Amino acid sequence: MTGQGEPSRPAARRPAVVRPLPIAVDTMGGDHAPGEIIEGAVDAVREHGVRVVLVGQAPRIQRELDRHGFAGKIPIVHAEEALDMGEGALASWRKPKSSIAIACHLIKQGRASALVSAGSTAGVVATSRLRLKGQQGVMRPAIAVALPTTPRPTILLDAGASVDVKPEGLVQFAALGTAYAQILLGVERPTVGLLTIGSEPGKGNKVTKRAHELLSGGSHGIEFAGNVEGHDLLRGVVNVVVTDGFTGNVALKTMEGTVRTAFAEIRTAMTASTPARFGALLQRRRLQELRDRLDPDTYGGGVLLGLNGTVVIAHGASHARAIASACELAHRLASGRIVERIREQVAATRTSRFGRWTHGERDAQDKDRNSRPAERPGEAPKSPEPPREIPAPAAEHAPPDRTEPPAAG
Amino acid sequence: MTGQGEPSRPAARRPAVVRPLPIAVDTMGGDHAPGEIIEGAVDAVREHGVRVVLVGQAPRIQRELDRHGFAGKIPIVHAEEALDMGEGALASWRKPKSSIAIACHLIKQGRASALVSAGSTAGVVATSRLRLKGQQGVMRPAIAVALPTTPRPTILLDAGASVDVKPEGLVQFAALGTAYAQILLGVERPTVGLLTIGSEPGKGNKVTKRAHELLSGGSHGIEFAGNVEGHDLLRGVVNVVVTDGFTGNVALKTMEGTVRTAFAEIRTAMTASTPARFGALLQRRRLQELRDRLDPDTYGGGVLLGLNGTVVIAHGASHARAIASACELAHRLASGRIVERIREQVAATRTSRFGRWTHGERDAQDKDRNSRPAERPGEAPKSPEPPREIPAPAAEHAPPDRTEPPAAG
Repeated sequence: MTGQGEPSRPAARRPAVVRPLPIAVDTMGGDHAPGEIIEGAVDAVREHGVRVVLVGQAPRIQRELDRHGFAGKIPIVHAEEALDMGEGALASWRKPKSSIAIACHLIKQGRASALVSAGSTAGVVATSRLRLKGQQGVMRPAIAVALPTTPRPTILLDAGASVDVKPEGLVQFAALGTAYAQILLGVERPTVGLLTIGSEPGKGNKVTKRAHELLSGGSHGIEFAGNVEGHDLLRGVVNVVVTDGFTGNVALKTMEGTVRTAFAEIRTAMTASTPARFGALLQRRRLQELRDRLDPDTYGGGVLLGLNGTVVIAHGASHARAIASACELAHRLASGRIVERIREQVAATRTSRFGRWTHGERDAQDKDRNSRPAERPGEAPKSPEPPREIPAPAAEHAPPDRTEPPAAG
Repeated sequence: MTGQGEPSRPAARRPAVVRPLPIAVDTMGGDHAPGEIIEGAVDAVREHGVRVVLVGQAPRIQRELDRHGFAGKIPIVHAEEALDMGEGALASWRKPKSSIAIACHLIKQGRASALVSAGSTAGVVATSRLRLKGQQGVMRPAIAVALPTTPRPTILLDAGASVDVKPEGLVQFAALGTAYAQILLGVERPTVGLLTIGSEPGKGNKVTKRAHELLSGGSHGIEFAGNVEGHDLLRGVVNVVVTDGFTGNVALKTMEGTVRTAFAEIRTAMTASTPARFGALLQRRRLQELRDRLDPDTYGGGVLLGLNGTVVIAHGASHARAIASACELAHRLASGRIVERIREQVAATRTSRFGRWTHGERDAQDKDRNSRPAERPGEAPKSPEPPREIPAPAAEHAPPDRTEPPAAG
């Protein structure tokens, strides 16, 4: 029974037999927590054979597991506090014992391979950035979402984790996206497009123009396919679309709003006359399926890439089904050794970028990573600190491969 | 007959009787030029009673007018060259005698009140920026588009004229949008939203956070309604949505692509089974209307605000109908004295912003306006020039009210 096993025993002392680490599921985040979350985790165990560990109010979880007849079959780790859906970044400091913080702790201890949470994106991102720390060499993390293109999804990143990004940051996002696409889409060399406002290299703002230069440089292990525009997002012209977290978030929410408006208007149009209403009856199911496929609220959620651990952020409105597939996704990414792949991809971009640094940029990047808001946007710091190497904040706490299944290491 | 009159006679020597200046129509720009363009202009004259002057290859225009039985009823100004749809900013320098350049010249001479062109946006923007120059006090122009919200459209700016914008630039866009909305929507105090990635003031990138502070400051004559997000764009929550030209362009094209995908999928879904196909027959017309309403390709086109003259950029694929309404819009804006309103609105924001300048910003803004690409994005200039007042490049050539109907002055 995959649900069994002792996640409390550290990875080091595990038997040689390969047993993938469980997925830590935050049972306290999300509009329908903990009921739907736990049900989803149970489904993941039952249907996908994923190992999970449930983090949250132990008694409540116990009751739910009884209800599903899974008492004692899924390990539980108690957590006192929960981040409210309304809470943002600050909560990550205020609540060191939140279910998300505990789940991150399990990953750092090598007792879990990944985290699944339907909590507020801001809270999940802030807490996991604080607890898991950024991967060595990764300037800033990015949220990758899968756009519902056919035949296979298109990966868009960043969907909102890092809003003020330098050109080198976008190049790194391309590396993160490449590693993610290799696992999610099973493509060996995924094509990467840069989201901007024209197909020609010269089109875009200062950051994207420079990023285009860097990406066109080659020798960074990225299959750069050039610029893409807003109307290409759902056309599936590339495997990965790279943009900063601000633009990506605006684009994603614009898509969401447009789909809703379109289908709301269609409903109206279709029921405006008796024959039309009759026609609508014949199509309601099909259209509902279609809306579900296109509406990020349904397919939504994303993966936070670039930290020392895999973090799957399910949509706040997630029901059991969405949680189950989030667990399955987290399992796939962990088994695919996403963190290691990212380290390799980013290393490739860094060597190719070597020598391109300027002090101003380094300082700006450090400022960005520590997310100290600048007094004046777009300005170099008043008193530039001496340039220094990009630090590896988390290297000593938790080397990336610690978060992978031991067999993989 | 409104089409008659001597546009060659300068505004000053006109009789006291109020006769609005004609709209200069670029007959050489657009996928369907000159046929559809000229037909649209003729419709504008015939149906909307708008006065126009046709700029382009005189013989060809003559032939078209004969075809419509309007020979001699609409003035023609000959232009040798045309900007190709593929041509961008450089063409504005290479072709000083292009139809757009000539039309701008008519505005500067006070022989036309506005310009309508279906040429390439890049070409129209670059040429009119070069020929008409920016209005006194306006840092950078913006393209305003009307999103198809109900009951009244929502104005989004900038849709792509100025991509690297400072917070003060966004405040000015709010002023431009306010002036535009007052005329287009007939609202006395239009509500203005700032496009960003969260409703709370703290959400967004450095530029939008700072812009939020400035807009919240009040005393700038702008009815600031706070932040709006991508999914609010089609909900009509505010009259005006302000953003930089990069984000605005991405959002607009994302909307366009999403609408197309949604309706393409709907067509498929609706014709997938015999009963569904039957239902589809009952609704085809309605859905087509709906698609047309939502697809920017149909309602598309925009108005370039902030120059010493009104420039209406019709969609490149415009047919006669779109051109006619573009002429009608240009006429409304000129009669509404848009340039003067903008001057007043911007003056209000500048006084309220007085003292907030820093040298770095001023230099950056000057650089932006002269659109010299910076070596390193987001950095302050290597050797800061001494701070100076925002120059008024075009004041002496053409005082803004010169572009308004003389009766208005």
